[in-house]
Amino acid sequence: MERLFIIKIGGNVLDDEAALERFLGEFAALGEKRILIHGGGKIATRIGDQLSIESKYVNGRRITDQPTRDLVTMVYGGLVNKQLVARLQVLGCNALGLTGADGNAIRAVKRPVKEIDYGFVGDITHDDVNISLISGLLNTGVVPVFAPLTHSEGSILNTNADTISSVLAVALSKLYSVRLIYCFEKKGVLRDVENPDSVVRHLTRSLYAELLEQKALADGILPKLQNAFAAIEMGVSEVLIGEADDLSKNMGESTAGTLITP
Amino acid sequence: MERLFIIKIGGNVLDDEAALERFLGEFAALGEKRILIHGGGKIATRIGDQLSIESKYVNGRRITDQPTRDLVTMVYGGLVNKQLVARLQVLGCNALGLTGADGNAIRAVKRPVKEIDYGFVGDITHDDVNISLISGLLNTGVVPVFAPLTHSEGSILNTNADTISSVLAVALSKLYSVRLIYCFEKKGVLRDVENPDSVVRHLTRSLYAELLEQKALADGILPKLQNAFAAIEMGVSEVLIGEADDLSKNMGESTAGTLITP
Repeated sequence: MERLFIIKIGGNVLDDEAALERFLGEFAALGEKRILIHGGGKIATRIGDQLSIESKYVNGRRITDQPTRDLVTMVYGGLVNKQLVARLQVLGCNALGLTGADGNAIRAVKRPVKEIDYGFVGDITHDDVNISLISGLLNTGVVPVFAPLTHSEGSILNTNADTISSVLAVALSKLYSVRLIYCFEKKGVLRDVENPDSVVRHLTRSLYAELLEQKALADGILPKLQNAFAAIEMGVSEVLIGEADDLSKNMGESTAGTLITP
Repeated sequence: MERLFIIKIGGNVLDDEAALERFLGEFAALGEKRILIHGGGKIATRIGDQLSIESKYVNGRRITDQPTRDLVTMVYGGLVNKQLVARLQVLGCNALGLTGADGNAIRAVKRPVKEIDYGFVGDITHDDVNISLISGLLNTGVVPVFAPLTHSEGSILNTNADTISSVLAVALSKLYSVRLIYCFEKKGVLRDVENPDSVVRHLTRSLYAELLEQKALADGILPKLQNAFAAIEMGVSEVLIGEADDLSKNMGESTAGTLITP
């Protein structure tokens, strides 16, 4: 199967102009089929503050009420997405920005209200991805750039960018050999959180179980690793967790970050 | 040649929820190949006020400074575009939102500074349209929905929605028999501006010249008609000026608005 790279960047890249410029330069220069997923970074919070849209939390979980939904639609789907697309275009990369609503790329279900009403949040599975739209775009040389937004019943919904990335990876594994790359603030998964060079270069399920037993992993990385192994379980060939600056290396054979395989 | 409808809606539809709902219902129900172009309506001004972004004018012409450019990128490219797309999706219309940056759909040139520096405004011609991208999308059953934004040298630029509509119509006339439909607040071009039923049903270049000579046309309609005849001159088969509520009729043979042909 042909290879496809699905690359997620978060606030640590978006909020740092120098890091973003380096990342976009590397990303644009690649020849491979690839998809970019971006988060929102601090800009949504800043514009929300200016618009007096309060961030609401219940039990530490953010609630997407209607003003917040409209805010993220503007900022993620408009400002951040279109600026990234325009910048990639001038670098020679034929980027095309999408939300899940566009071309029905990713349908969602509004999260059911149980103890907490999360508001306009979309839950998704790999069955919700329009793989024929996305592969059609990839086949014409287009590079899809996803904002973390989905849709249901005529509404835009807020969906976590990490979740969109893994769901896209699982769905597109039917057609491609997918490497899912999470760019985050460290070089990779660290054996010793105090030592940035203690990257676990290759993580398999058995080593993961071992490290968990030894309590050798920082709490912050556990949700990412759970997601990563869930994606592997569902057919994704490889997941890589690493630094945005190492993108080229992390797309090649000798990776700098943590390569996760079955 | 196959027919293509290019339909532009402005603030009079976007700012009136009941009118917008009727319009989207009619638009979604159509089977024909079609493209929607929307303006921004009052929502950009309202959000700009909340963000303390001042509307600047020089000699009555609006200036797009950087805060205004970012505002319209958010509002046109994000909020308005994605809400329209999500609403069309639930109505069964496979809408996909685009700015000119997406897939390099419409390149622009930043307007050169002469007496006035218009700021981040994009000038475009029909040579700037990526007709293979757009016809490719149309061929897969996608309905492109354009925000009035273009791009140049890594920047999003603000471009008039009427201009985008006519430039798309001219460019796509190479591949399609295009009817360009401008939805505005009146039933059509009126012989007597006081009488809403005095619609000129069919306007040719010779009748236009005659009406101009008689000074029978309201000043407000003249720029629209100049644009319309410029489009006809450049190969667009038909231009129709009419009310959003008459969309179905205006896409058929016996139109309710003003049909403009060579």
